[in-house]
Amino acid sequence: MLYEINEKVMKLEGEGRNIVKLNIGDPDQETPREIVEAAYEALRNGKTKYSSGAGEMKLREALASIHDVSSDRVVITPGSKWAVFAIMYLLLKDGGNVIIPTPHWTAYELIAKSLGVKVRFLRTELDSNWQIDAQELSKLIDGQTKLLILCNPNNPTSVALKEENLEEIVSTVDERFIILSDEVYSDISFAKTKSILEFNGKNAVVKSFSKTFAMTGWRIGYSVTSEELAEKMVKLNLMSVTNVPVFIQVAALKALELRVQIAEKMREEYRRRADLACEVLSKTGLRFATPDAPFYIFPKYSNLDSERFALDLLDQGVAVTPGTAFGEYREHFRIALTLPEQEISRGLDRVCRGIEESL
Amino acid sequence: MLYEINEKVMKLEGEGRNIVKLNIGDPDQETPREIVEAAYEALRNGKTKYSSGAGEMKLREALASIHDVSSDRVVITPGSKWAVFAIMYLLLKDGGNVIIPTPHWTAYELIAKSLGVKVRFLRTELDSNWQIDAQELSKLIDGQTKLLILCNPNNPTSVALKEENLEEIVSTVDERFIILSDEVYSDISFAKTKSILEFNGKNAVVKSFSKTFAMTGWRIGYSVTSEELAEKMVKLNLMSVTNVPVFIQVAALKALELRVQIAEKMREEYRRRADLACEVLSKTGLRFATPDAPFYIFPKYSNLDSERFALDLLDQGVAVTPGTAFGEYREHFRIALTLPEQEISRGLDRVCRGIEESL
Repeated sequence: MLYEINEKVMKLEGEGRNIVKLNIGDPDQETPREIVEAAYEALRNGKTKYSSGAGEMKLREALASIHDVSSDRVVITPGSKWAVFAIMYLLLKDGGNVIIPTPHWTAYELIAKSLGVKVRFLRTELDSNWQIDAQELSKLIDGQTKLLILCNPNNPTSVALKEENLEEIVSTVDERFIILSDEVYSDISFAKTKSILEFNGKNAVVKSFSKTFAMTGWRIGYSVTSEELAEKMVKLNLMSVTNVPVFIQVAALKALELRVQIAEKMREEYRRRADLACEVLSKTGLRFATPDAPFYIFPKYSNLDSERFALDLLDQGVAVTPGTAFGEYREHFRIALTLPEQEISRGLDRVCRGIEESL
Repeated sequence: MLYEINEKVMKLEGEGRNIVKLNIGDPDQETPREIVEAAYEALRNGKTKYSSGAGEMKLREALASIHDVSSDRVVITPGSKWAVFAIMYLLLKDGGNVIIPTPHWTAYELIAKSLGVKVRFLRTELDSNWQIDAQELSKLIDGQTKLLILCNPNNPTSVALKEENLEEIVSTVDERFIILSDEVYSDISFAKTKSILEFNGKNAVVKSFSKTFAMTGWRIGYSVTSEELAEKMVKLNLMSVTNVPVFIQVAALKALELRVQIAEKMREEYRRRADLACEVLSKTGLRFATPDAPFYIFPKYSNLDSERFALDLLDQGVAVTPGTAFGEYREHFRIALTLPEQEISRGLDRVCRGIEESL
């Protein structure tokens, strides 16, 4: 349905219709100019050759210092998604099962299916503020479990796992296998979130420059794993993607230099948008969790058929993503706040009208 | 040994030693300025967002037109190596065997091993001018064979398969499985080479912007496959690398606009270097095939232990790659002509001296 909605949007726009796209997880902001200029300078300086499969040492060291880990544990990847793919490939290609809490980002499930491994879904609910039930998790684990994937803060709910919940999860897993925590929204989250790296064990984190620095299309992210897994990832890089272009890594290093001010600006912008959305949506019959982070809201409306609803909304000129794109969440839909406030406002009015009409 | 030599080179250079690096498959040329400027313009125009997993339509159409195929068959990839990985992953992850003629580029074997599939090596020899014996090929094929990988023109020999040889190979395979032809050197080859795309069947080609346009570190290549396989590659892209950055694709499109003059210039430069190398090396006891393409020569010296020889040469200030990096070719070593003529000349003198001393 994710793609079906996208296709329909493009078709309608082709017909001259105006659609407010609240369905896209790609920030509307431009990449800050300093980052673009850093890439250009590197290009002119001939940073256009093959390089290390692990990434540029300066960038790895800067990231290692931020996370307070050894740079041997940091691997630069063409997007955090590649890091997720690489970790799942390396840990699961020879079999095993993976536990994925729902609602979940589509890619986790697609990769698992492609690798032919069994997925055990762990359902979370709005009524429990999207926290994970450690007892339910415990029931899903067996000797073949190789990986648990957390998305924290979560896409599509924008809710972070509470520190106590994370502690319960870590203690339930008890270092029997790796917890992979996708923390791409954490640097611009509104609430303080805890990283899986703050716990002992061989757990892994993937992060990205995409959201924090509006660099989605640059394709640069990274992983922090055990040194052993990092070595395997470097080998996999060398036989597949080789390296992230060095001029892009130079740009990313510039981004890190400016990260405090850029992240602050992004966070404030998304916070305003989230406040606006919460205010508008709370006047409807929709129920939703207050977002801890950018840039989604995942409201629920009892007995809603969100696939039908999303298609109807398209006729009203607004695109949202049905909850079924993230698991069995037919009563939910996802709103992405990746447009300027005025546009969001206009889109949300149409959503509210749609909800009223479906009463 | 490929990496061991590299490591030693870096160590010696760190100690202040001058090493002529005839071991590296990365052109010394700078990416042409027009291509760099096209990337910068695209960056400033905000071409920094997520995009199609198949690649930008304009670039796909330009490539489709060059190869006289439908653009549905063209997929843009982060380097041709990723295209090889993706095709092997899709065709072999559920089992089967792959036939790889030797000497071969290291990545093919590494990918196969990573996927846990059986590799059947098909030996070629200098004495047969590195052509493939169709009868030997026939013996290696069974019901589990899923892929044959050609590298044409070849790395490390720089010899192209003759048209008749290619015809024999195609007829031996008889559309029972896919032939993947890695043709990254063909656009700057000295001899006319025939593409696998000129034959019927579901055969596939991977190509790159790396060699033709001195864009190795930009990580952009592409594949031309059946539409069916192209669709699967796009899905794999969307769950792993997502897309090649659009500003890099814009730069690649600019490269294609200038391809006739750039390719011609590159070809002439490498032809001069190859002529020089052939002249110098022919005065020694080394035997080698006249290169059809840039940028390697793969000489043989009877009873040579090329690993020992390569390490000894390092002491003389020149780096080459032992033949064992490309299969069981201990009597061979690879010279890469990726330096200016004067440097090549200096390096080859040291190689010749090394050969004399090992008499």
